[in-house]
Amino acid sequence: MPQTVSFTKGHGTGNDFVVIPDADSTLDLSDDQVAVLCDRRFGIGADGILRVVRSAALAETSSGGTRDHAEAAVAAGAEWFMDYRNADGSAAEMCGNGIRVFARYLADAGLAPIDHSPVRIGTRAGIKSVTRSELGFEVDLGAWRVEDAEVLVRAKGLDVPRPGLGIDVGNPHVVVALPHDGELDALDLTVRPQLHPEPAQGANIEFVVPSDPLVREGVGSIRMRVFERGVGETLSCGTGVAASALAVRDWAGVAAPDRWSVEVPGGVLGVRMVPVAGELHVLLSGPATLVYSGEVALA
Amino acid sequence: MPQTVSFTKGHGTGNDFVVIPDADSTLDLSDDQVAVLCDRRFGIGADGILRVVRSAALAETSSGGTRDHAEAAVAAGAEWFMDYRNADGSAAEMCGNGIRVFARYLADAGLAPIDHSPVRIGTRAGIKSVTRSELGFEVDLGAWRVEDAEVLVRAKGLDVPRPGLGIDVGNPHVVVALPHDGELDALDLTVRPQLHPEPAQGANIEFVVPSDPLVREGVGSIRMRVFERGVGETLSCGTGVAASALAVRDWAGVAAPDRWSVEVPGGVLGVRMVPVAGELHVLLSGPATLVYSGEVALA
Repeated sequence: MPQTVSFTKGHGTGNDFVVIPDADSTLDLSDDQVAVLCDRRFGIGADGILRVVRSAALAETSSGGTRDHAEAAVAAGAEWFMDYRNADGSAAEMCGNGIRVFARYLADAGLAPIDHSPVRIGTRAGIKSVTRSELGFEVDLGAWRVEDAEVLVRAKGLDVPRPGLGIDVGNPHVVVALPHDGELDALDLTVRPQLHPEPAQGANIEFVVPSDPLVREGVGSIRMRVFERGVGETLSCGTGVAASALAVRDWAGVAAPDRWSVEVPGGVLGVRMVPVAGELHVLLSGPATLVYSGEVALA
Repeated sequence: MPQTVSFTKGHGTGNDFVVIPDADSTLDLSDDQVAVLCDRRFGIGADGILRVVRSAALAETSSGGTRDHAEAAVAAGAEWFMDYRNADGSAAEMCGNGIRVFARYLADAGLAPIDHSPVRIGTRAGIKSVTRSELGFEVDLGAWRVEDAEVLVRAKGLDVPRPGLGIDVGNPHVVVALPHDGELDALDLTVRPQLHPEPAQGANIEFVVPSDPLVREGVGSIRMRVFERGVGETLSCGTGVAASALAVRDWAGVAAPDRWSVEVPGGVLGVRMVPVAGELHVLLSGPATLVYSGEVALA
């Protein structure tokens, strides 16, 4: 008799997830089971799985790095842990769109009263603070780093190679500015862009078009498309949206605003740069939608 | 308060469908609602929707061609009607993979006792007979027609243009034989193949590699990839599988068998040519799997 699991399907700007509540951490999904669940024709279909587990229960039932992160979450008072798995089953650290879907689930299921004071959520990238925001939910992605070394980017549909700016927001990005929408639309991202030099761990590559004028009523505005390493073009990448706003802010210089609106193929996201405990953090906000709930028998 | 609908998700060799039970025909889905439900990131995700409706109820609640088909189904003793909609919301006629998923649902839900004697199902392409088979379910696709006019097919990855054979099995197909697996695998079907002359209504295009030897223990064997008109490459196309077996049988001449095994990217299907009431019919058999059930709020 196969085990039956209840789930909820949700998305943030088209980045979609199977949310599986497992408060007591009794579910041990194999990589193959995750891959079957995430298959878009033979399974449910998603970019990844978000298991909703109590940090204390995860600390008791896991080992290695995950246990360390779960124990850190317990110590920090983060009741819930986002056990995020990629569509291929591998353990993943963080996802700027996924954590909003996770927060939406916690709120709608009554597991955590998320409002305008932050709720802490455990992840393999550390404790993340999430609040309600105008667009839906906002997550503090922490500090970032602008890389010094210049990268040259070649892409199909781009007339000449263009310089890219390396931005690290927990994971590595290279951001390329394009002069107008026509060039952004003409990009063929079915083919992986080439980086020179190629970063050792690879990087997500964002192509951005700053609006003209760049800033309206204190908010900077850009359009973005993204090629995610190991995936291809996606409708949205939360950390890529933050990196894009940070890169354009860097290029724009001292007068640049600390609030940004980023349009991606899957929707619109907001980015803010805010001082937190003495250092600047980057915060990402956007919608999170629960689409349906169901029950599936595990293979 | 949005209306909530119960559904079951299923697939036949990777061709996937949202099955919505609506025995009394109370559900009137707009094209937009169907499109949202079929969206793979913002909705449930599927190639189409199969509404399970009593033929008598559909005859009372529909108009035009659908009512005519529903009344014909009632007259023929087909209790259930497959109201099939494409992912864009348009009404569709028949699908060799979809009707097996429909039959699986009828059987598993206890709505019709499908066994080795045929059950009749109403569709917009007429009444279809479905039985259990070794592979899962088998559907009688009726008679077919081999076209006389030669078609020349150009495709990306194909070294030379190749002749195609037109086969009509209720919808139009052009079948192209390739000499070996390497050439089939090298085809780039992200680009639409060109037909000369182009049929007025277009056609699905199947590329097939006959096995060597072609026939083992009375069963002919081929591999196939398909480019569906208006869609692109798919994992499987039921009528295309039947057309492919019919074309290779035609090329093989008088000694060709009447049983075929066709391997597509999504699995393996069976094709038989059987005399029914004085004429040869083509029958398609294959698996049908129900993956999960759920509830979704209509937008």
